[in-house]
Amino acid sequence: MASQPVDGQSCSSVEQGILIVGLACLDIVNVASRFPEEDQDMRVDSQRWCRGGNAGNSSVILAQLGVSVEYFGTLARVPVTDIVTQDLARYGVLHNKCVYHTNCFTPTSIVIVNEASGSRTILHGNRSLPELTSEDFDKLDLSCYKWIHFEGRNITEVIKMVEKIRTYNKSCRRDEVITVSVEVEKPRNEYQKLFALGDVVFVSKDYARYHGYKTAVEALHGFSGLIKERAQLICAWGEEGAWGMDEDHHIHHSSAFPPDKLLETLAAGDTFNAAVIFCLWKGKSLQDTLSFSCRLAGFKCGIQGLDISGFKTS
Amino acid sequence: MASQPVDGQSCSSVEQGILIVGLACLDIVNVASRFPEEDQDMRVDSQRWCRGGNAGNSSVILAQLGVSVEYFGTLARVPVTDIVTQDLARYGVLHNKCVYHTNCFTPTSIVIVNEASGSRTILHGNRSLPELTSEDFDKLDLSCYKWIHFEGRNITEVIKMVEKIRTYNKSCRRDEVITVSVEVEKPRNEYQKLFALGDVVFVSKDYARYHGYKTAVEALHGFSGLIKERAQLICAWGEEGAWGMDEDHHIHHSSAFPPDKLLETLAAGDTFNAAVIFCLWKGKSLQDTLSFSCRLAGFKCGIQGLDISGFKTS
Repeated sequence: MASQPVDGQSCSSVEQGILIVGLACLDIVNVASRFPEEDQDMRVDSQRWCRGGNAGNSSVILAQLGVSVEYFGTLARVPVTDIVTQDLARYGVLHNKCVYHTNCFTPTSIVIVNEASGSRTILHGNRSLPELTSEDFDKLDLSCYKWIHFEGRNITEVIKMVEKIRTYNKSCRRDEVITVSVEVEKPRNEYQKLFALGDVVFVSKDYARYHGYKTAVEALHGFSGLIKERAQLICAWGEEGAWGMDEDHHIHHSSAFPPDKLLETLAAGDTFNAAVIFCLWKGKSLQDTLSFSCRLAGFKCGIQGLDISGFKTS
Repeated sequence: MASQPVDGQSCSSVEQGILIVGLACLDIVNVASRFPEEDQDMRVDSQRWCRGGNAGNSSVILAQLGVSVEYFGTLARVPVTDIVTQDLARYGVLHNKCVYHTNCFTPTSIVIVNEASGSRTILHGNRSLPELTSEDFDKLDLSCYKWIHFEGRNITEVIKMVEKIRTYNKSCRRDEVITVSVEVEKPRNEYQKLFALGDVVFVSKDYARYHGYKTAVEALHGFSGLIKERAQLICAWGEEGAWGMDEDHHIHHSSAFPPDKLLETLAAGDTFNAAVIFCLWKGKSLQDTLSFSCRLAGFKCGIQGLDISGFKTS
């Protein structure tokens, strides 16, 4: 294994693991017995302050699946960020290369969980934290990673980062090549550029519907022209399960595995993505990957938070 | 003026001013162009972390009206509380007798402000901060205050605190007697006990409607049997203005003074209460009091936050 010291750290500590690039933020999760009416003044049943963010969520799931995983993103140098870093540390997610900024605040998502339906409504506020730059990315020793996943945000810079991985991949030994996955989640037109970047591409139901697709299969066919040759395209579709298109454009499907009692769908998508990355990284078939990932995402919907220690892997 | 040192502080610093008892908490105010739909993931236009709480809000309004005002309540000894205390200090609200608790967290209200309608939806979470006790109240030197206002919460203890003021009032010189005001805001049956406590009682539209009253006048008549002899009863009714019943049970009314552009109704009620206390403390008639208070509350609805420096008092 190629191992070069970066920032005094040898990458042996991540054993050529998985790098997750994106946001780790503060989630203030308000659990109530119903969704509030406008202009109401209500007391919530519980309120928890915890680490959130798509990349942060997927990182802690991967860590619990037994993978060496590192989170990379920007963080605000304020006391509230301790909630984020302490949670990453608790699950053994490496995060020591994160880029700290001063004079800014931790991005904060207000989440309203309706206990009756399990729905999660998210109000995201990023007041000032700068996004990661491709220059920040240069501080990483790419030989430490076998897989790098990008959350669907900050696209201009993400495109440059993926370009750097491509250059690295051309120069390295075949067994050192890095697999790239990207998420196309938010329904915005400019996010279309992300499709071409990944060996594995996650496209969300929201994004697919925004483009007029009524089913996951329609979406997979519709977006298949945008992905790299032999890339895999994954599309989860809520209660109907998840679909995937393999390297040969064959479609696979797994039904959903809803829990006995739907409790909280918050971060179920990030859990699903982490599970897919885990399985494909392990060399599982796309069919087995979808099935395992739907099972894990379903399990998550039956618990509060992301401690999946109660999940039975087989 | 009677002045006894308490906790090393002489009450000359508040010049026999107004004490506001209740909650000062963290408000996380999320401003969006519309109210979220359930299960949506949306970005808000702005998010501000600021001091909130009915008692905290009324305190900073009174301070800006030029009154010596002190806030009294419990606070959590965590870094986030600095947001609360720094704002009180900024407006010159004395708060050095507050009771600090460890192993708990700052109560936090999530506020969603709809810019289109000015509506404010509040999700209040108090995870652990203990309420004020009547023993905490004993640490105050009552000779420092001419008026004490109680936010409508924590009734069992508030009843005991008011009892202590009554005992004090019986023993002191006539010009030292403390006027008591209380707020009956939240629509809960047990709050009815608060009516008998105040020389001035604020009853909310919410509470009145909860008891089946369709207008403020109906509510004033309906609740008039519950108040002390010669107490005044005040009822604000949103866009219709505010009504008040004086010591002789005569009803007075002021229409509302809506701003040119309704921006944020958050804390408009606390602003109104503060203005009423200010005017009655100054010896104004109830009619003038209602009129001034409706004007100030209307002004507040046209600004974000509680900096009323742009308000023209005449």
